[in-house]
Amino acid sequence: MLSRSTIRVLRTFRQPRTMTATTSRAFSTLDLIPDEPAGPSVVTAKIPGPKGIAASAEINAIQDPRTHVVVPNYELSKGNYLVDADGNVLLDVFAQISSIALGYNVPALLDLARSDEFVKAAMNRPALGSFPPVQWASWLKTGLLTVAPKGLDQLVTTLCGSSANETAFKCSFMAYRQRERGSPDVAFTKEEMDSCMLNHSPGSPQLSVLSFKSGFHGRLFGSLSATRSKAIHKVDIPAFDWPCAPFPELKYPLSEHVAENEAEEKRCLEEYEKILIEGKTTRPVAAVIIEPILSEGGDKHASNSFFRSLRLIAKKHDAFFIVDEVQTGVGATGTFWAHEKWGLKEGEEPDFVTFSKKMQAAGVYHKKETRPNAPYRNYNTWMGDPIRTLQAREMLKLIKENDLVSHTSQIGAFLSSSFESLFSSPVASGKVMNFRGQGEGTYLAWDMASPQMRDQFLGKMRLHGIQIGGCGEQAVRLRPMLTFGQKHAEILVSTVEKVLKEL
Amino acid sequence: MLSRSTIRVLRTFRQPRTMTATTSRAFSTLDLIPDEPAGPSVVTAKIPGPKGIAASAEINAIQDPRTHVVVPNYELSKGNYLVDADGNVLLDVFAQISSIALGYNVPALLDLARSDEFVKAAMNRPALGSFPPVQWASWLKTGLLTVAPKGLDQLVTTLCGSSANETAFKCSFMAYRQRERGSPDVAFTKEEMDSCMLNHSPGSPQLSVLSFKSGFHGRLFGSLSATRSKAIHKVDIPAFDWPCAPFPELKYPLSEHVAENEAEEKRCLEEYEKILIEGKTTRPVAAVIIEPILSEGGDKHASNSFFRSLRLIAKKHDAFFIVDEVQTGVGATGTFWAHEKWGLKEGEEPDFVTFSKKMQAAGVYHKKETRPNAPYRNYNTWMGDPIRTLQAREMLKLIKENDLVSHTSQIGAFLSSSFESLFSSPVASGKVMNFRGQGEGTYLAWDMASPQMRDQFLGKMRLHGIQIGGCGEQAVRLRPMLTFGQKHAEILVSTVEKVLKEL
Repeated sequence: MLSRSTIRVLRTFRQPRTMTATTSRAFSTLDLIPDEPAGPSVVTAKIPGPKGIAASAEINAIQDPRTHVVVPNYELSKGNYLVDADGNVLLDVFAQISSIALGYNVPALLDLARSDEFVKAAMNRPALGSFPPVQWASWLKTGLLTVAPKGLDQLVTTLCGSSANETAFKCSFMAYRQRERGSPDVAFTKEEMDSCMLNHSPGSPQLSVLSFKSGFHGRLFGSLSATRSKAIHKVDIPAFDWPCAPFPELKYPLSEHVAENEAEEKRCLEEYEKILIEGKTTRPVAAVIIEPILSEGGDKHASNSFFRSLRLIAKKHDAFFIVDEVQTGVGATGTFWAHEKWGLKEGEEPDFVTFSKKMQAAGVYHKKETRPNAPYRNYNTWMGDPIRTLQAREMLKLIKENDLVSHTSQIGAFLSSSFESLFSSPVASGKVMNFRGQGEGTYLAWDMASPQMRDQFLGKMRLHGIQIGGCGEQAVRLRPMLTFGQKHAEILVSTVEKVLKEL
Repeated sequence: MLSRSTIRVLRTFRQPRTMTATTSRAFSTLDLIPDEPAGPSVVTAKIPGPKGIAASAEINAIQDPRTHVVVPNYELSKGNYLVDADGNVLLDVFAQISSIALGYNVPALLDLARSDEFVKAAMNRPALGSFPPVQWASWLKTGLLTVAPKGLDQLVTTLCGSSANETAFKCSFMAYRQRERGSPDVAFTKEEMDSCMLNHSPGSPQLSVLSFKSGFHGRLFGSLSATRSKAIHKVDIPAFDWPCAPFPELKYPLSEHVAENEAEEKRCLEEYEKILIEGKTTRPVAAVIIEPILSEGGDKHASNSFFRSLRLIAKKHDAFFIVDEVQTGVGATGTFWAHEKWGLKEGEEPDFVTFSKKMQAAGVYHKKETRPNAPYRNYNTWMGDPIRTLQAREMLKLIKENDLVSHTSQIGAFLSSSFESLFSSPVASGKVMNFRGQGEGTYLAWDMASPQMRDQFLGKMRLHGIQIGGCGEQAVRLRPMLTFGQKHAEILVSTVEKVLKEL
């Protein structure tokens, strides 16, 4: 049982805030969103209510509505609160599947969208690869490049996370073959040029991307071939015969299972290296792709040392290393990129880091050595969308000015302590297990006793005014925005407590 | 030699304009874009000029600039005129690789972008599959659905043409397997669910998409496997072992080669059907994909009867039929969809029609029978972008109000006559051949004598103030906007004449 007074005590766990150049006091959500609602408010007996159900039925004439959760009124939503068609005001800790960084209708972002620069960029969408706007370099340098992962100074923009990953795959395949040829100047053979038109080797080579069990990398044909989270995403869709390595099944809390978890990680690393070696004679692995936290697959964690080893073993066997930060990127784990925590040394950086979701813009950071040797090899009509680049630039400015990554780290520490207390109390007994994500900002998750109980939990949370999401088979995942503050955290923790009592 | 007086005579070829409910006189570009420049203006000795070259060099620190043509100043561009970094004003008949429908900085579209509805939709981007905005059905019904191809009342929105095609592929594979199972209610077997997680059959089935030689369908892994235009797009990238059928190599002008062309189409149809039959025992064809005019591959045409046969033969062999209107759609061929001209009877409509580019929104129109049997099978985070849906709605309204499809048909007829005269005159002799696209609006193309001469032609056109594009090996393609009018056409024709004289 976690009372308000316990929460007050737990608050003392928060680290004192570091002074920064741009802020001199703790961030308050009201700084960015002055008229955010005071709290959730539920006005219908069920969610969705009658208006939401009618809206979904209307959509059903055109599109499949079976995945609808609620039908929001985005014009009325504000900050961390999503307002639905029936007027329910929900504290949103799922944030459009982790893709809203700062909140709904943030005034500074609405101002951006009304600016002449944005309006003209929106209505004059260029083919960026051939006709880039005269401001393009400046927009990138003052925006997306300010958060480029260490060692990666090149950037290809795309429209979504799946195509960001597929761009990294294509760059890997091209660079892998170029390395085999010995130089960027070696011409393609006639046999390569002819056979690729028939989708046959050697022009269409038998190379592969290695991914991990429970990993999620998108749902286009290349990215779906690397995705290993749920069968319903994959069944009936042709896939490349690419290898899948085991991902450690760690026991939580990590601090209580050190030896077993180390053994499990060692087992996985050995199997991974075996696949890389065996692939060399059949379908060589040109690239390895991994999420720093396997998110869609159930918020699965591994140690920093495990990830460092993955990277080094990939290098040893000539595979490029792609870190998929589509969901983990942009601050929610308490560092801007989740892989910053791995402690990779200079020269050991990933070859590619992909992003999308909370960045609103999508793309791939990479090194100059993986730029294709000829023009038009990595090319398409739009190659991203300048307005999302402008939006990312403005959001990054607000994130830095308000020190929102540190803020999220601190709120995450408070949430961790609060949930650790709550989940070790009798109210959670037999219902909640494997609480995880401590030290990863607000990127927290836990399992419920069964998939059914998980779904029941999510539904009841909604009726208590909180929009919260699941992942994997029976996990609950928190994906609040970076403006999620102390007050929201207290509402969340006390509502979880309330719902656990009801289950 | 085509003088101004010849052009005036040719003008009489224009059909008298039909009265419509919304317009009572011929469309003038100035109706939509009152302050369009009077004509091209070139101020630098080379294009790009020094400022354009400097802008590309700055981008080169971050991204590959080798595909840059010019670096535009979109804020100064207007209507059919693209202004570059050096102040050159170019009549743009390439339109961002055929993806600008109405022009640069069209006042009505800028007004849309400044509207509260658009601004809030831009800054509150939903996960459409789970949290669609309360206006979503209405936005679709008053916009994209008003131009739904006959017989296709379902719509999945995506972010680009490649993912639109891949969505159609996925829906085809799922529907194909469902038909094999006999009912949407038959559960997946455990073997299917387990094997698909390893990318193995039966869960990941050995099914294929048939495409045509010179076809272009995108550059993601599934769409690239169907693309057969240029080796440089495909080499080094693993591809699915999917079949490629021949596309007729017709002789132009079509009216002079009727018998040979019929024989060539017959040969291709026979080979196509043979592949469909042979595939049944190895890698069955679940879907056939075709562009109404093979655009990126060189503007290759075939007869309406050829396309009707393709459709009927696909049906006979249980393959779904996907019409890729990513480039041909939205009016440029003189009908809203190019495949409208095929004369398909009721019940013979395509199963899927994909779109993107000029629509700015992207997606797939389809039938209810190809909606997947379970939720989350066709799903991703964003599933399109509402602001591009709003933009499409506004553009469609302007296209209808100004009757721009008929307008484009008429301007196309004028251009056809003018170029037929010009290309049969001595100035074009030995330089221009295979003029094609008559009866397809402004969707016109011709070959130059060699790839080198084509590239030289494009460069010289630019120096005379016209931004024009190529396709295939040595073709020039016209892709003007729908607001391209009589005056622009006259400038274009006389400039082509001038440049042909210089070659």
